[in-house]
Amino acid sequence: MLPHLQLGAEIEVGPGDDAAVVRLPSPRLVVTTDTLVEGHDFLGHATTARWIGRKAAVQNLADVAAMGAAPLALVVAISAPADTPAAVFEELTIGLTARAEADGASIVGGDLGRAGQLTITVTAMGSLPLDQEPVRRSGALPGDVVAIGAPRLGRSAAGLALVLGERALVRAGEDGRPTIMLRSIQDSSAADLLRWHDAPDPDLSLGWTVGRSARAMMDLSDGLVRDGRRLAAASHVTLDLDRAALAPDVEQLTGLAAELGADPWSWVLHGGEEHAMLACFAPGAVPDGFRPVGQVLAPTAHGPEVLLDGAPIEGAGFDHFG
Amino acid sequence: MLPHLQLGAEIEVGPGDDAAVVRLPSPRLVVTTDTLVEGHDFLGHATTARWIGRKAAVQNLADVAAMGAAPLALVVAISAPADTPAAVFEELTIGLTARAEADGASIVGGDLGRAGQLTITVTAMGSLPLDQEPVRRSGALPGDVVAIGAPRLGRSAAGLALVLGERALVRAGEDGRPTIMLRSIQDSSAADLLRWHDAPDPDLSLGWTVGRSARAMMDLSDGLVRDGRRLAAASHVTLDLDRAALAPDVEQLTGLAAELGADPWSWVLHGGEEHAMLACFAPGAVPDGFRPVGQVLAPTAHGPEVLLDGAPIEGAGFDHFG
Repeated sequence: MLPHLQLGAEIEVGPGDDAAVVRLPSPRLVVTTDTLVEGHDFLGHATTARWIGRKAAVQNLADVAAMGAAPLALVVAISAPADTPAAVFEELTIGLTARAEADGASIVGGDLGRAGQLTITVTAMGSLPLDQEPVRRSGALPGDVVAIGAPRLGRSAAGLALVLGERALVRAGEDGRPTIMLRSIQDSSAADLLRWHDAPDPDLSLGWTVGRSARAMMDLSDGLVRDGRRLAAASHVTLDLDRAALAPDVEQLTGLAAELGADPWSWVLHGGEEHAMLACFAPGAVPDGFRPVGQVLAPTAHGPEVLLDGAPIEGAGFDHFG
Repeated sequence: MLPHLQLGAEIEVGPGDDAAVVRLPSPRLVVTTDTLVEGHDFLGHATTARWIGRKAAVQNLADVAAMGAAPLALVVAISAPADTPAAVFEELTIGLTARAEADGASIVGGDLGRAGQLTITVTAMGSLPLDQEPVRRSGALPGDVVAIGAPRLGRSAAGLALVLGERALVRAGEDGRPTIMLRSIQDSSAADLLRWHDAPDPDLSLGWTVGRSARAMMDLSDGLVRDGRRLAAASHVTLDLDRAALAPDVEQLTGLAAELGADPWSWVLHGGEEHAMLACFAPGAVPDGFRPVGQVLAPTAHGPEVLLDGAPIEGAGFDHFG
């Protein structure tokens, strides 16, 4: 049982019985599950419980959206050490609920248990109309336009660099509001970047609105290049990214990157946890909300891959704390 | 991505894309989630990965069944230490899949990540026909018969007593098959009781077949008395258990209980993790597969409660390792 649950009218049975009952608009269920673990997927001193809740929600909501489906219901399993303050569960739930509701979904069930580390597993569900095929990773065709449903990439990686460089601490006040403390950082965008890392806020509605016209779509979990390779492999194509299209993203990160001795191109190309939509559209058919960042080519002699201005890209992409 | 996945025809998109797509028989989704954590919900030296997988499946399948719904799809999130052998994931999946398939369900998606402890969160989904109301905990009426969908209770608690008494070790061979080693135990049923604790095997189909005629139903997770109190509270009734009906369950446990210095009545009344159905039926309408163990009464002056032959019951019921 979790606090702060507001149930939509489609919830026939909410938390408190053996299982929830949800009236879906269609019997074509879309479902995904993903976990955040303290020390691996987030560091307690660099975020707040409310942001962890938002991130746990968004990474699952994004997977439903990336199939072209609107999310409707979430169930949440939280395991935590015995001495975890009650406020942590409350704040997690506030964050989960806020993000879910922003995308039209309700938390319909939960499980609380014990573990050595705070662990949050969210399962997100939605449905697809019977006449709407799921937007898979495998439909991209040579000649299509590669596009992303976000004005910028690389923010989450920049925030992660602040965390891993031990330049950032976050504390929640009694009202749950975060205070971000930065050490020896001049760049004025740093706090926003940290916040984006801790609680990325992509427009997921692009997935179940205009994104339905995509030939292929997925969400950016592990970086543009790594995820692009997955889409390329599924579609048997090569993605050729356009350096000029991504240069503005890099430009906005150069100040912080210089302070941290980092490569902003690496953040934009390989940074994970943006959870924006990556999609391929027919030429001339990129909808509002998406911006072109490359072209789809026939696979090269090396097979499906991701190129930048026609050249191979170094670096492997995002991996979690490990 | 998990190995050993066999997908039913209703799975339109299985693992490998952002989310799975499942064609449900009805748009009334039934969903539940639950987690097992090493050191809290199981001890690695006293079970095998295959059994952990079975248990993780059954505890979720039982919750779907207890609403009167047949489970159809599972998603599984597994987090594990970096040095976890690949065989553990394989064996977990074999156990999960075997139990899911036995109940007609497929594993349609998964997530693998890192954690300090092996942690398995399963979300189980099914659907209810539009003309079949969910069987809730709240429908029991005075005069109904209390019944359980299991030939015996208390086995899981007996097995747990072997584990907590450090009388049992389990090792898996290269083929995944378990070897149970018991220390200073004469009782010939001990190995079966340990196995039942590690991988309880209730007939869950009772929930979505004859159990649909129940006025109230839930699965026995935390013990007959503790769960009975939940059903009693939801229905605003009192459950009066029949000592004579439960005596055969106790009788079969007396040998091991004597060896361990335990009270077999406590195992039967308070033992958790049986995952059998607990249901209330109209008088004279207890279906095959369920056996009567008590009567539903109007609530007492103390409110809804669970009695044994009309008298209060001591003991609080099952709590996890903690």
